[in-house]
Amino acid sequence: MRIYDIIRKKRDGHELPKEEINFFVEKYSKNEIPDYQASALLMAIYINKMNKQETVYLTEAMMNSGDVIDLSAIKGIKVDKHSTGGVGDKTTIALAPLVASCGAPVAKMSGRGLGHTGGTLDKLEAIPGFSIEMDAEKFINSVNEKNIAVCGQTATIAVADKKMYALRDVTATVDNISLIAASIMCKKLASGSNAILLDVKTGDGAFMKTLDDSFELAKAMVDIGCGMGRETIGMITNMDEPLGFAVGNSLEVIEAIETLKGNGPKDFVMLCETLGAYMLVLAKVCESFEEGKKMIQDAISSGRALEKLKEFIENQGGDKRVVDDYDLLPKSKNIVPIKSPKSGYISKIEAEEIGVSAMILGAGRETKEDELDLSAGIVLQKKVGDYVNEGDVLAYMHYNKEEKFEQAKERFINAYEIVDDKTQPKKLIYGVVTKDEIKKF
Amino acid sequence: MRIYDIIRKKRDGHELPKEEINFFVEKYSKNEIPDYQASALLMAIYINKMNKQETVYLTEAMMNSGDVIDLSAIKGIKVDKHSTGGVGDKTTIALAPLVASCGAPVAKMSGRGLGHTGGTLDKLEAIPGFSIEMDAEKFINSVNEKNIAVCGQTATIAVADKKMYALRDVTATVDNISLIAASIMCKKLASGSNAILLDVKTGDGAFMKTLDDSFELAKAMVDIGCGMGRETIGMITNMDEPLGFAVGNSLEVIEAIETLKGNGPKDFVMLCETLGAYMLVLAKVCESFEEGKKMIQDAISSGRALEKLKEFIENQGGDKRVVDDYDLLPKSKNIVPIKSPKSGYISKIEAEEIGVSAMILGAGRETKEDELDLSAGIVLQKKVGDYVNEGDVLAYMHYNKEEKFEQAKERFINAYEIVDDKTQPKKLIYGVVTKDEIKKF
Repeated sequence: MRIYDIIRKKRDGHELPKEEINFFVEKYSKNEIPDYQASALLMAIYINKMNKQETVYLTEAMMNSGDVIDLSAIKGIKVDKHSTGGVGDKTTIALAPLVASCGAPVAKMSGRGLGHTGGTLDKLEAIPGFSIEMDAEKFINSVNEKNIAVCGQTATIAVADKKMYALRDVTATVDNISLIAASIMCKKLASGSNAILLDVKTGDGAFMKTLDDSFELAKAMVDIGCGMGRETIGMITNMDEPLGFAVGNSLEVIEAIETLKGNGPKDFVMLCETLGAYMLVLAKVCESFEEGKKMIQDAISSGRALEKLKEFIENQGGDKRVVDDYDLLPKSKNIVPIKSPKSGYISKIEAEEIGVSAMILGAGRETKEDELDLSAGIVLQKKVGDYVNEGDVLAYMHYNKEEKFEQAKERFINAYEIVDDKTQPKKLIYGVVTKDEIKKF
Repeated sequence: MRIYDIIRKKRDGHELPKEEINFFVEKYSKNEIPDYQASALLMAIYINKMNKQETVYLTEAMMNSGDVIDLSAIKGIKVDKHSTGGVGDKTTIALAPLVASCGAPVAKMSGRGLGHTGGTLDKLEAIPGFSIEMDAEKFINSVNEKNIAVCGQTATIAVADKKMYALRDVTATVDNISLIAASIMCKKLASGSNAILLDVKTGDGAFMKTLDDSFELAKAMVDIGCGMGRETIGMITNMDEPLGFAVGNSLEVIEAIETLKGNGPKDFVMLCETLGAYMLVLAKVCESFEEGKKMIQDAISSGRALEKLKEFIENQGGDKRVVDDYDLLPKSKNIVPIKSPKSGYISKIEAEEIGVSAMILGAGRETKEDELDLSAGIVLQKKVGDYVNEGDVLAYMHYNKEEKFEQAKERFINAYEIVDDKTQPKKLIYGVVTKDEIKKF
């Protein structure tokens, strides 16, 4: 078998058999195939595409390129949740204790953020003392005892994916459905959960900008998961405007806590209820979506989820008093209101631009080496559909880097569209993809 | 300007402007763009193609990536001839003295062979003492005094092409019309001739296997040449069976000499007459193709071309006595007849397999590092259309490497197709492509 022949085959639009896909992934992750051959193959895959079967083979090969975690020592059905990333997406911080408090084991491995979308690990680390590092034993014991643990992805998982992603990133071969689906799913599958709930973000601030692409990606990932024997459900949810009001690490932690206290933003609460209900169904903790949703609502109103969050923070070395005293979280020196330049209805808040604006303030990383300012970010006061008068506060910017403020503010202001006619916010949930059907709402 | 954006643009099927093509070629040849980005772009170009204008820009950028030779010190119109390579293609050795003896200056830079096709330089070096190394002054003086000089391509010509070709060779991006055309033409254009005659080989033993592809390549190269102000003509000629009878370095030198003595194989003589006539027309030594053809025929019958060959050999340090004493050329220890396994008409001799067979005997290089056996090769006795009885000699194999004989013989025998019904050889010349028309014969 020669990589040259594999490249040629895909270049000419033919299907690659399992052995050839395995050969590529295995040799590439062992540095036995050079980057220049891999990038030629990836470009051929990008343009000529992979079919469903090839995508499953690719995912499996990538999963097997590193450690495959065994979570069988954890009792119950382990459900993993994955979001394709968005602006203000603090879902895991609220959802993990919510679901855990309802009796489903949460054994989650998360990643860091890059670019205009944040990462769960960075957000959790805004809590003083909180550690995402733990060995397998502690991880398993935590879930068995507390029903919840979140740790960082080990470097030894899906080794091929790291190499391939870095290469795709510089060769314009990122946004291909098969390559994205394989990259996400190989890590999820290697993480050892029994079932997977996918939150595929769609719209301006998401990786997938169009609804069609988002449904296609969800379908591809559900096919992979189910094709490899893990029950998988994909949701398509809105990321045209930021989720909730807060964007930035400690600001989002506060919003997640407020949500567990029953004071969450409408869109974010709805998302947690929906995702949570599906997770409980997948974990077989309840029978139906409706039942699951009720359980999640009860977990909030009873305060059980908030208690679970405290337990979770404490178990991972964090200061659980933050739940009642936000002053313990990192705080910015400057908190500056940004005012509306005109009166009217807000018809658009470009999520990506808000994400970039927050990143400029220090909430995100432009390159892997950038240091985060965990206190920095933006708290919106108005969302799409709201009426504002000229001079009303659109948002507060939290920051320490004075020199970045003007640039961030300009991007922020340009992200808003304010019009005369009343407008409606877009729907939050566009559809659900299961093995057997694609349901569009 | 960023290479990432250029890759993305071509990936999505858009046209690249001149500045972006220049940026890529310039930065890549200076090692400022890594191979893995170049190979991604080349694959995108391969699949999504380049249009005529992009191909001209690419060629110009590649030409400018190295030295551009100035031949203005040579009197007259310098016509270069380029063959896309075939089996038994000893054309330059006969054609250069033929054309020079008719009064057209021949200032030729040639290459070495790789794979199943030989290179003119290797063939000339079969002549004892012959050197293809000379400085610019000697080269120019030789052409001004003798009307003829052939030297090796300097390493400083079209630097980008060498790097790009090496990369294309291992990433399955070789056989794209624009990339091939640019690769050939950038070197021809940098070599400083005023007009170019292209011999595009077509068929089994050629780089271009189909007639359509061959016409397309010829058209692309003629467009480039004319687009850059050099009169260019492309011929499409047959390479389904080997050209002439001899395949192998010193064996081909003998056949070329015999041709100048008036004893050349029918197909090879016809090719020399046709190419020669067009070269004389391009050099404005005569008015019409017919006139040119007559001049070439006269150069043979009068012995003038043979005299010019002697002068040429002597001027480049070679032993001109080889013209009359072939024993001075390298000779193989073994000369073994290969007999026909059956009776019938020869309907096919796969040129590529004959080339590979000769390569195995030592006449060609499988890798750049391989040493040639200049004496080794094959001399056919029969060609397509001939009748043979079982046991008749199909060819003589010349070789020193005893251990390679059986393998070479097997490939040789398998290249023949012998049938009961009488068959005709294919036509030698399929057409001519000029700036204004594509003439198919």
